[in-house]
Amino acid sequence: MSSQPEPGTEPGSGRPDVLVHRFRSFDFPFQASFRDHFTILDPWTDSPDEPADAFLARRAGGARALVCVGPTPLPADTLRLLPSLQVVIGTSAGVDHIDLRECRRRGIAVTNAGAAFAEDAADYAVALLLDVLRRMSAADRYLREGLWLKNGNYPLGFKLGGKRVGIVGLGNIGSHVAKRLQPFGCDIAYNSRSKKPSCPFPYYASIHDLASNSDVLILCCALTEETHHVINREVMTVLGDRGVIINVGRGSLIDEKELVQSLLQGELGGAGLDVFEDEPNMPKELFGLDNVVLSPHRAVITPESFEAMRELTISNLKAFFSNEPLSCLVQHK
Amino acid sequence: MSSQPEPGTEPGSGRPDVLVHRFRSFDFPFQASFRDHFTILDPWTDSPDEPADAFLARRAGGARALVCVGPTPLPADTLRLLPSLQVVIGTSAGVDHIDLRECRRRGIAVTNAGAAFAEDAADYAVALLLDVLRRMSAADRYLREGLWLKNGNYPLGFKLGGKRVGIVGLGNIGSHVAKRLQPFGCDIAYNSRSKKPSCPFPYYASIHDLASNSDVLILCCALTEETHHVINREVMTVLGDRGVIINVGRGSLIDEKELVQSLLQGELGGAGLDVFEDEPNMPKELFGLDNVVLSPHRAVITPESFEAMRELTISNLKAFFSNEPLSCLVQHK
Repeated sequence: MSSQPEPGTEPGSGRPDVLVHRFRSFDFPFQASFRDHFTILDPWTDSPDEPADAFLARRAGGARALVCVGPTPLPADTLRLLPSLQVVIGTSAGVDHIDLRECRRRGIAVTNAGAAFAEDAADYAVALLLDVLRRMSAADRYLREGLWLKNGNYPLGFKLGGKRVGIVGLGNIGSHVAKRLQPFGCDIAYNSRSKKPSCPFPYYASIHDLASNSDVLILCCALTEETHHVINREVMTVLGDRGVIINVGRGSLIDEKELVQSLLQGELGGAGLDVFEDEPNMPKELFGLDNVVLSPHRAVITPESFEAMRELTISNLKAFFSNEPLSCLVQHK
Repeated sequence: MSSQPEPGTEPGSGRPDVLVHRFRSFDFPFQASFRDHFTILDPWTDSPDEPADAFLARRAGGARALVCVGPTPLPADTLRLLPSLQVVIGTSAGVDHIDLRECRRRGIAVTNAGAAFAEDAADYAVALLLDVLRRMSAADRYLREGLWLKNGNYPLGFKLGGKRVGIVGLGNIGSHVAKRLQPFGCDIAYNSRSKKPSCPFPYYASIHDLASNSDVLILCCALTEETHHVINREVMTVLGDRGVIINVGRGSLIDEKELVQSLLQGELGGAGLDVFEDEPNMPKELFGLDNVVLSPHRAVITPESFEAMRELTISNLKAFFSNEPLSCLVQHK
């Protein structure tokens, strides 16, 4: 160990600095295991009474690596306080909360944790779809209100087999969704930025065309400027009054006001929503609808996937400090 | 067409008699399409003010075929009124409501509609499992009560991948369940009356041993004298406090009183129940549990499977009257 520590390394520890960027209300439950390998700089733990930006300016100027916890916004203003930053390790699947343009301009590498969460997200998409079609949550509420005995059978749902399922975004999550839905007898098609050469499913370059040829749309794509409100009223209209939309991506993929109107007016068959435009607020009009399943942004989260995310984050940080290739790169530095 | 009609054939019509046996409250929605091929004898339509048994004695003595709608009991006493009966076509997957011993003694063939319903039942079993593990119905209730904004995140569930799933009864439904769960990354094992020679999954001759080696039990077997209360307290205990039971078979496969106690005492991790011992009554203690998903005996039912059941029933009746082989035989005559 050199007696003259590297910049961005706590003197005497030999462990490189890693800045933890998080909402004050967000836990960072893996601190202990991270501290075995890195010197953790965490404003909310190290200096809770100081404004976070002041802490960053004072203490994090030499930090080369930042872990961005969950959807904590990382705007250009914050990045400007970190002149030595070379890598942003995101712990969520989406990275729309990170100013990717500024990172690209600065040559900062960005990774996400999509690989750790993809299976859980795909499981949840299938579960939401089954729930909407077969009306399970609604039937469960019906029983708990004692209505089976009182009012008799609950209305039937629909069979999953034979449904034409359009997957919007055939990345990690979308591919896992497709693999899971095939044994149910669904006909899969997809939309994506580009056609996947080795993919056996029909490709539609436009979401409108995919919707015209689908009974169900499952949204698994990233939220970008291009995909903001990509599910607009016109797409809902062509999907039709038996059509179902499942969203495990981000709330703003859908024009939520139009979604609520389509559902209230019976112009859309149903929806399974894990994400909303203004979480944890959500349109109260949905609370009265039995053809809608609501979920508090947790498709990707299980204890098992948290553990996979922890392992991925540590291995990516180790790779960075050893000049080895990073996993799950969103963009190269 | 002979001028002297066959016994059990309405004079002049040429269409053979088919007796419809149903609870008065049960619809028989396919009457019209059946009447194209058969003369339907239905006490509740033909003679609603006459006791059903009197109608059978007076009118159905020559009937060779009976369609048993849903779980309408068909005991020996009713069978005795039908001396010419040669076939019972069940329209449900289970046939525990039919006196199979009496049918066997009389040489009456019995068929079920398992093939028409197996995919829906398997879909529902997977859906219930995902719901219990990921706590979707419970999270949906939490949101509808406005608690996301008020109390923050809802507790996490568990990942389906990697779970050891023991299927009890690897028939039509169980095989479809296994096929669906494999892409989720589950480890499948099974219990059945006998080992299936060409099946790749580990076989356990005892349910106790299957439970000891499983995180989840999915009940897809028929209810018989041997399987009554086959899930007893001991099986629940070895399954353990993280273990989950899914039942899409019949309520009495489980000792329901013991199930309620195991769940209330936290000795079992969760349950997804489509069936109960005394439907539509059910243990009210379950209403307060968030690790339980309740469903009003509808795993097998969608409009699509109703249509498949209608086709199977008509084709089996036609086969019977043409002396051709029957599908979905429970027992030969």
